[in-house]
Amino acid sequence: MAARPGGHNLAVMNGPKEKVLTLDTMNACVKRVEYAVRGPIVLRALELEQELRQGVKKPFTEVIRANIGDAHAMGQKPITFLRQVLALCVHPDLLNSPDFPEDAKRRAESILQACGGHSLGAYSNSSGIQPIREHVAQYIQRRDGGIPADPNNIFLSTGASDAIVTVLKLLVAGEGRCRTGVLIPIPQYPLYSAALAELNAVQVDYYLDEDRAWALDVAELRRALCQARGHCRPRALCIINPGNPTGQVQTRECIEAVIRFAFEEQLFLMADEVYQDNVYAEGSQFHSFKKVLMEMGPPYSTQQELASFHSISKGYMGECGLRGGYVEVVNMDPAVQQQMQKMMSVRLCPPLPGQAVLDMVVSPPEPSDPSFTQFQAEKQAVLADLAAKAKLTEKVFNAVPGIRCNPVQGAMYSFPRIELPPRAIQRAKELGLAPDMFFCLRLLEETGICVVPGSGFGQREGTYHFRMTILPAAEKLRPLLEKLSQFHAKFTREYS
Amino acid sequence: MAARPGGHNLAVMNGPKEKVLTLDTMNACVKRVEYAVRGPIVLRALELEQELRQGVKKPFTEVIRANIGDAHAMGQKPITFLRQVLALCVHPDLLNSPDFPEDAKRRAESILQACGGHSLGAYSNSSGIQPIREHVAQYIQRRDGGIPADPNNIFLSTGASDAIVTVLKLLVAGEGRCRTGVLIPIPQYPLYSAALAELNAVQVDYYLDEDRAWALDVAELRRALCQARGHCRPRALCIINPGNPTGQVQTRECIEAVIRFAFEEQLFLMADEVYQDNVYAEGSQFHSFKKVLMEMGPPYSTQQELASFHSISKGYMGECGLRGGYVEVVNMDPAVQQQMQKMMSVRLCPPLPGQAVLDMVVSPPEPSDPSFTQFQAEKQAVLADLAAKAKLTEKVFNAVPGIRCNPVQGAMYSFPRIELPPRAIQRAKELGLAPDMFFCLRLLEETGICVVPGSGFGQREGTYHFRMTILPAAEKLRPLLEKLSQFHAKFTREYS
Repeated sequence: MAARPGGHNLAVMNGPKEKVLTLDTMNACVKRVEYAVRGPIVLRALELEQELRQGVKKPFTEVIRANIGDAHAMGQKPITFLRQVLALCVHPDLLNSPDFPEDAKRRAESILQACGGHSLGAYSNSSGIQPIREHVAQYIQRRDGGIPADPNNIFLSTGASDAIVTVLKLLVAGEGRCRTGVLIPIPQYPLYSAALAELNAVQVDYYLDEDRAWALDVAELRRALCQARGHCRPRALCIINPGNPTGQVQTRECIEAVIRFAFEEQLFLMADEVYQDNVYAEGSQFHSFKKVLMEMGPPYSTQQELASFHSISKGYMGECGLRGGYVEVVNMDPAVQQQMQKMMSVRLCPPLPGQAVLDMVVSPPEPSDPSFTQFQAEKQAVLADLAAKAKLTEKVFNAVPGIRCNPVQGAMYSFPRIELPPRAIQRAKELGLAPDMFFCLRLLEETGICVVPGSGFGQREGTYHFRMTILPAAEKLRPLLEKLSQFHAKFTREYS
Repeated sequence: MAARPGGHNLAVMNGPKEKVLTLDTMNACVKRVEYAVRGPIVLRALELEQELRQGVKKPFTEVIRANIGDAHAMGQKPITFLRQVLALCVHPDLLNSPDFPEDAKRRAESILQACGGHSLGAYSNSSGIQPIREHVAQYIQRRDGGIPADPNNIFLSTGASDAIVTVLKLLVAGEGRCRTGVLIPIPQYPLYSAALAELNAVQVDYYLDEDRAWALDVAELRRALCQARGHCRPRALCIINPGNPTGQVQTRECIEAVIRFAFEEQLFLMADEVYQDNVYAEGSQFHSFKKVLMEMGPPYSTQQELASFHSISKGYMGECGLRGGYVEVVNMDPAVQQQMQKMMSVRLCPPLPGQAVLDMVVSPPEPSDPSFTQFQAEKQAVLADLAAKAKLTEKVFNAVPGIRCNPVQGAMYSFPRIELPPRAIQRAKELGLAPDMFFCLRLLEETGICVVPGSGFGQREGTYHFRMTILPAAEKLRPLLEKLSQFHAKFTREYS
């Protein structure tokens, strides 16, 4: 559909006008974007929910959305203290109410004190409310065993996604063989592939080792890098730890090796650490890239560029809907950091309710505070529940022939590998679907269980997976896992 | 600073490593972005505030931020009903409290009913909570005298800025002389120039007519378009009505002419209508582009592509910090609309508190509801106060020799033209500053008043302006205007 020549008054007489904006004339980069977590399978799930509401008969009574790490949607209750303080901030008349603990009131007052006109309705500085940036810095310092963090290196954001895209945007440059390449894990969280497609950067895949519980291997990083250098200019390396969708937690040694590699190969490091509170496996521990980097000493600690991302959407709080997060940058060129600040200012500021909740997350009640006991109890209950569900998921899946599931050491997902019979693969091809997409669609239609095919995250050729959250309530999770396993068996029989 | 060749282990021995990301190697489009509303003058204002806190002596005791349309920061109180409902949504325990009116409780319950897990902490659909989209559609239909709106054409967003950038992003395509050109008014709100720079699209300026109260003239649109066709492919036309920073309210005739022009010239229309509630001048009235378009009948109503933007940040509510807004698209290619939905899904969803408040804005208490009287009284008080301040601003400025101010018919800003003496212009040039930037910086240093130079919005060569909000509290505004006028006189004397 070529553009019409000239564009003159004839248009009115010429019958139906062509649209200005069509698939053929729109931004080609946007067209290439894919985002499986909310892709076709989720759209179909929405339709099914509507059909159920309209009374259409289905072999199930509800759609279970195990496609996305959305804790509250799966029934997890908000942490009381967070919501008390947020309610006080939103409606300060409540500061006179006897129904709120004193520390919640003090906290709300101090947050409002830092807001323009003492209102969450005012814009904040584009990099976030200053005292909250300071609290984030103190949190990082405590987390990292006393290694200092500078509030000026911390930028609050609209969830972690926003900050990740901002940093990627800074990195994109060049044309043709000089285009920026960015190394991302496969399987990956598809925000990365989507953002790189939109920014017209080159996605450079490095594969995690499924046989070693999705470990990251520097030799594989090197292979990916060398291969990429033939057709682009790799400039950044993204790490997701704990892994999404893969659930592995990286060892300190691994992180050191990655940092050394990034340093030697001149790569900007991006550490997606939004699941830092979600570590379940015995022997696993979260090590922040910042801490390891600093402990390695010069030249790493003084020169290696790093951006580390965190969020209020995951952890024990699961406040996805409030869209809060932050990025800490380390060793970033000050002039570039100014450019980043400028970029953020165009969008004015991150939402203030998300900023307020981030403040509480990084600076929770202290032992002497009235809310301490309840806060800790609620937090531990959520994390213990998740740990139990991580274990249960692994166990149930691994008892099923044709399903193999690595331990869910951290994060919120299992990413089991499934065997699919050749006739199913054949049938999928006929339908123009990835084989695991075909499996997941059939699963959804027959059981109401909504999970995301591995092809949406990337996987080794000829292997098939799906991502399922471990978030469904404990009493629902076991039947769900069993239903899914039974479906796999039935599907396998059907196509064998 | 050329990139280092190869990138091998030598780096460790080679002394100080060059950074991966520098001004020279970063995204050149980002570097070109400017955003005056939060630019150098605001950074200086922040420094001055810090100096004041540290006890540094200044010729003023506070910095007055009249640079940005941030109502709450200037002391405007939030609308009670909005905050009551939001507090109930955030902390549903309050639903049992006797301190909230029944309609606020019912509203909160119905919003929570539509949230995953009945929590604002769950993600919503990427295009927003479905019943809220429906309420927006009903609001538009009422506003437009019964012309229907389709909820499926409405996408909630993180403030209007987010939606504007999303639509611009869809439109960007082509290289060299085929690059997408977008017509924007001069003076403009610098989100547009910033987004176009970042997206590497061509900014095509059309000038508003200062001598006719910033009216939009189709002959000038045509001039801009014809000139642009020599070096790019103009595909979209942005309108800001009521105008920012210019405050004009477009007549129905003008809107009709613009639509006819866009139709004939094959331009996608973008109508920034975030100030639709902010119309003050007698005889001025807000006409939505959607309504005029539909009333013009075919082929316009059936073919002309339009996106209209609205926000909760302005109007009488001023809830900037919550980041809520929406876009309605009309006659958009369904396939492109799907692409837009996909793009939005990558960022997961707009913040839920902003969505909730949008729900109340588009569907306020009815006369039979207990909150109706107070809601209406608060709303009318804010709007009447703004109208009075708009008038006052125009009056005071126009009494000053060397300042000329068009009527503030709508929006939240005055954009007076100032005469600057040749020696001041000379001095500014020596300092490498735009003359009105020089004026505004001096104003800030000597009076603490922070306004944005006209050069940040664009203006005709050789003319100088500044943008000042009309938001300061009534008792502060008059002294402020007088102080500013006196400063202008002093500045003029000093450089004459």
